[in-house]
Amino acid sequence: MKPYREMSREELLQLKAELESKYKEAQAKDLHLDMSRGKPSAEQLDISMEMMDVLNSSADLKDSEGVDCRNYGVLDGVKEAKELLAQMSEVSPDKMIIYGNSSLNVMYDTVARAMTHGIMGHTPWCKLDRVKFLCPVPGYDRHFSITEYFGIEMINVPMTPEGPDMDMVEELVSSDPAIKGIWCVPKYSNPQGITYSDETVRRFAHLKPAAEDFRIFWDNAYCVHHLYDDQQDFLLEILDECEKAGNPDLVYKFCSTSKISFPGSGVACIATSPNNLKDIKKQLMIQTIGHDKVNQLRHVRFFKDIDGIHAHMRKHAAIMRPKFEAVLDTLERELGGLEIGSWIRPRGGYFISFDAMEGCAKAIVAKCKEAGVVMTGAGATYPYGKDPKDSNIRIAPSFPTKEELAVATDLFVLCIKLASVEKLLEA
Amino acid sequence: MKPYREMSREELLQLKAELESKYKEAQAKDLHLDMSRGKPSAEQLDISMEMMDVLNSSADLKDSEGVDCRNYGVLDGVKEAKELLAQMSEVSPDKMIIYGNSSLNVMYDTVARAMTHGIMGHTPWCKLDRVKFLCPVPGYDRHFSITEYFGIEMINVPMTPEGPDMDMVEELVSSDPAIKGIWCVPKYSNPQGITYSDETVRRFAHLKPAAEDFRIFWDNAYCVHHLYDDQQDFLLEILDECEKAGNPDLVYKFCSTSKISFPGSGVACIATSPNNLKDIKKQLMIQTIGHDKVNQLRHVRFFKDIDGIHAHMRKHAAIMRPKFEAVLDTLERELGGLEIGSWIRPRGGYFISFDAMEGCAKAIVAKCKEAGVVMTGAGATYPYGKDPKDSNIRIAPSFPTKEELAVATDLFVLCIKLASVEKLLEA
Repeated sequence: MKPYREMSREELLQLKAELESKYKEAQAKDLHLDMSRGKPSAEQLDISMEMMDVLNSSADLKDSEGVDCRNYGVLDGVKEAKELLAQMSEVSPDKMIIYGNSSLNVMYDTVARAMTHGIMGHTPWCKLDRVKFLCPVPGYDRHFSITEYFGIEMINVPMTPEGPDMDMVEELVSSDPAIKGIWCVPKYSNPQGITYSDETVRRFAHLKPAAEDFRIFWDNAYCVHHLYDDQQDFLLEILDECEKAGNPDLVYKFCSTSKISFPGSGVACIATSPNNLKDIKKQLMIQTIGHDKVNQLRHVRFFKDIDGIHAHMRKHAAIMRPKFEAVLDTLERELGGLEIGSWIRPRGGYFISFDAMEGCAKAIVAKCKEAGVVMTGAGATYPYGKDPKDSNIRIAPSFPTKEELAVATDLFVLCIKLASVEKLLEA
Repeated sequence: MKPYREMSREELLQLKAELESKYKEAQAKDLHLDMSRGKPSAEQLDISMEMMDVLNSSADLKDSEGVDCRNYGVLDGVKEAKELLAQMSEVSPDKMIIYGNSSLNVMYDTVARAMTHGIMGHTPWCKLDRVKFLCPVPGYDRHFSITEYFGIEMINVPMTPEGPDMDMVEELVSSDPAIKGIWCVPKYSNPQGITYSDETVRRFAHLKPAAEDFRIFWDNAYCVHHLYDDQQDFLLEILDECEKAGNPDLVYKFCSTSKISFPGSGVACIATSPNNLKDIKKQLMIQTIGHDKVNQLRHVRFFKDIDGIHAHMRKHAAIMRPKFEAVLDTLERELGGLEIGSWIRPRGGYFISFDAMEGCAKAIVAKCKEAGVVMTGAGATYPYGKDPKDSNIRIAPSFPTKEELAVATDLFVLCIKLASVEKLLEA
């Protein structure tokens, strides 16, 4: 295929006419498809249905320590839930707090607590003139929404194939005491599917922040969310690295079963140092008597151990893999050589990140929408919804069926082509 | 029985010797009993076990609107959960947000949100020099812990048999713009079991607060928690009264199924005006994608409607009633006429409030503890844990078995007598 850039004006105009004609045909199909959010498909949810059977009216709802999980109590989670999620988080159970149904909620509460009460005795952030967070971009829109909501200033840090630009992170974190945190999705990152390299993790662990209450918000959302058995990314365990580096309190590590069992009805957790745990529990004991222990028990009895989780994740992968490949193959087939976009082939996670020609992302997403295919809003992967290059688009292949996905992706590449041609003709 | 006050020093000394001897006998029994927290008993939890069967692997987990409750989404609760909890809260479903497992958590978050973001556009409380709350006393220790945690100054307002002293409430609320809220348990109050009178509710609804962002925190925790079929307290619906009074935004009404199904694994909610709901949802959408809809569905399919809840609560009452009566009968039998304490006979809720002679509560609770019976800490029913008269003790009869309760209550009255005699001998 000839790169669009090398086409003459006449060729572009002719191509535009062809693409517009195809686009009209697509619009006539009256599609209603959604590739906007990282939601599991119904087929994926079906594989967890047996979890609904593990507890019934004759079940013993006592945990391994004899605690009646039906009643009040146990602030930080039942023993075996800590053990299971500790295995998943690759830490020891004494570093865990088990929460309710949403790790996003835990992250929100972690920021909220820092705002009103500070971290480990430091000044509450709400009493400071300026609080800043580093935001590797492209990143997760809901992270950015939390910091924006609390009036925290967000600084873009570009992602590289190894993780965030660590030269920039080190420089900023060590020089500016107003920088209190960084949002990270270190494995199969949202949206690029990048896993931080060993060197990146070690450089994180060795940070020397100007602010003593600087924390890394390590959202390990996709820790076990591989697409392949034989090609898996490996992420160094950050708490361990931080301890070795003499920085034990540097990280809050978040995790949940949302995309393992049922999103919204799973179990979330935090793993962090004893000092941080103590600090958190002082607040948590005011906020609640305890989280849903029956649901913790349900998860433990269903998955049993980390092997059970891995076996379950292979079932998810079997459903997800063909969808990812369908999208990637279409991108390759339709866009290869045209030089109007680039993308990464991830080995796990929930997203494919597409970078269009500069200034085209909004136009592409708008065209998709007008033809009945909802994409994540252009800009959503950047703080304040502002992608400075108007280039990045997040593709979420999980929710539609394979058939829907094929139709949606065909439309998506058509819109990319059309918007790119229009852009080139503008120039 | 002769009042202790009328006894001579010799009589008191002789009585003291007898009581001490009995106390030593009791200590020798090596008791381990707990009347400290409002926890349902195992027998009560058993009556909800069938809830574990209503959803199984072949269940349809779509709600009445076709939403797949296994997946992300639905910020404010599934339709039928709103309907059920609206019936329980005596409001229309469009005034509801369904939350997670704990109304305490909802109350905490409501205060936290007001701290960082203010209420309906008003200055965030964390930006103000002083924020104050009114605290009807005796009251619920976990309410007071929340306001204390946020550095909110608490002002005691005495309870009367009709509810809080409304002369004082009106005077303070209308004159001091730093007063931003009041904690209320309006029905079968914690710990006295008092239900606010119609006049009290109407005076609340007609408050003219100096602070536009003043809110009543109406914790309707015991709305359906009657002990008797034929003697039930009735509470006027406050949101309705506020609307009539032209004060629609004055109240946050909290409720949950914690003491209906399983504490910690139930469903909590808030009911409030459209303006407040809109204000809350702006925050909630940042904090979470949604609460546990599967558990919402589980509750709805188990209880079906408000009649199902009432039928279920009658089962709880059948277990609770004899326990309450056992404690009350023992108090009556052992303390009647001695004039060393007073108590209220509640018709619902979870507690019996006992007022000892001034300066005796701590001594009584300490004596109980030394003989193996844990009571709620003396002072816990007051802000900052400070009961100015050192008089109030909260009795929680629900958790022990009837047999344990009999033993514990016998010890309790023994400790009351002993502490009272010691106090009188001091004088």
